[in-house]
Amino acid sequence: MKSVDRLIAALKRLPGVGPKQAERLTLHLLRAPHSEVEGLVEALRAAKADVRRCARCGDFTDRETCRICADPARDQSLLCVVEEPPDVAAIERTRAYRGLYHVLHGALSPLDGIGPERIRARELVERARASGGALKEIVIATDPDAEGEATALYLARELKGLPVKVTRIAHGVPMGGDLDYIDEMTLSYALSGRREF
Amino acid sequence: MKSVDRLIAALKRLPGVGPKQAERLTLHLLRAPHSEVEGLVEALRAAKADVRRCARCGDFTDRETCRICADPARDQSLLCVVEEPPDVAAIERTRAYRGLYHVLHGALSPLDGIGPERIRARELVERARASGGALKEIVIATDPDAEGEATALYLARELKGLPVKVTRIAHGVPMGGDLDYIDEMTLSYALSGRREF
Repeated sequence: MKSVDRLIAALKRLPGVGPKQAERLTLHLLRAPHSEVEGLVEALRAAKADVRRCARCGDFTDRETCRICADPARDQSLLCVVEEPPDVAAIERTRAYRGLYHVLHGALSPLDGIGPERIRARELVERARASGGALKEIVIATDPDAEGEATALYLARELKGLPVKVTRIAHGVPMGGDLDYIDEMTLSYALSGRREF
Repeated sequence: MKSVDRLIAALKRLPGVGPKQAERLTLHLLRAPHSEVEGLVEALRAAKADVRRCARCGDFTDRETCRICADPARDQSLLCVVEEPPDVAAIERTRAYRGLYHVLHGALSPLDGIGPERIRARELVERARASGGALKEIVIATDPDAEGEATALYLARELKGLPVKVTRIAHGVPMGGDLDYIDEMTLSYALSGRREF
């Protein structure tokens, strides 16, 4: 049936959904009560209608300026740069950070045609420049993979010359890890970044 | 945001979608153009509105009786029993079968609380009985796994006494397989089911 094929095709377009999973999801949805499918539709539309990007940091929010940017208790001299909105949530969960954020919505990836204009890089530089010295440190917390490292280097270079300290989150052995199973790159970072007790 | 959490929760309820994938899908959908999300919603609703179950075989269809059941050229004496609608499509693709189908919409799974009343087992027995001898053979083509085998045995027992031959699809080595990599169970079936050239 055409409508079924169209649903499979629409689901297959979602990231990480292969042909088999698209078929399985379709089977489930066709068999599910109407109320369940309408619940999903409503959840989709409500989230889509509610959510916009914070005018300052770019994080997802339901207001003009997000809760964190609007909170005067946050340290306005510290800015943490992350790739995606869930990264903000992950750092917030640590309760170890009290500064502001800047969400890039991506990372540089020349192979996928994602250059600086596709991530919120210019906005970061503008923001640092416009702060007029209020901003003291920018912590680049992009992912510790090839794209994240390239993005970190690019941003550090772009921010050079501005009166702000630019730092990178530490690389090292993850807690609970087994040294035996950790790759050489991480281990060498852990060694070179060693600290005194 | 509540609406985002609700969308993640709704996606997590889908089969085979874990917490990480639900988050990733939500991120994608929030970032996607409105038109893409509405396209998905429309595809969902259209499929849901179009599709019902064939009154005879239980397969998904957009009419009262599906194309196959309504086709007088199909062999009315042969009935193939499968678990799911995609199994019908898979057998049709072989072009080696010209009979009718019966879709169970599931398989027996006591551990998941799926008993005979949850699959279209009674309908199959009724259908065989009501055929008045026109039906000569029922080929049970449930999956070759524990649930499928249990379902096949259960159906064979239920159909006993009716004037119809009940058969099971052959188990054996799959084409293109490497004997070295085939499990002992399959291999022993392949040996015991050997045929003369």
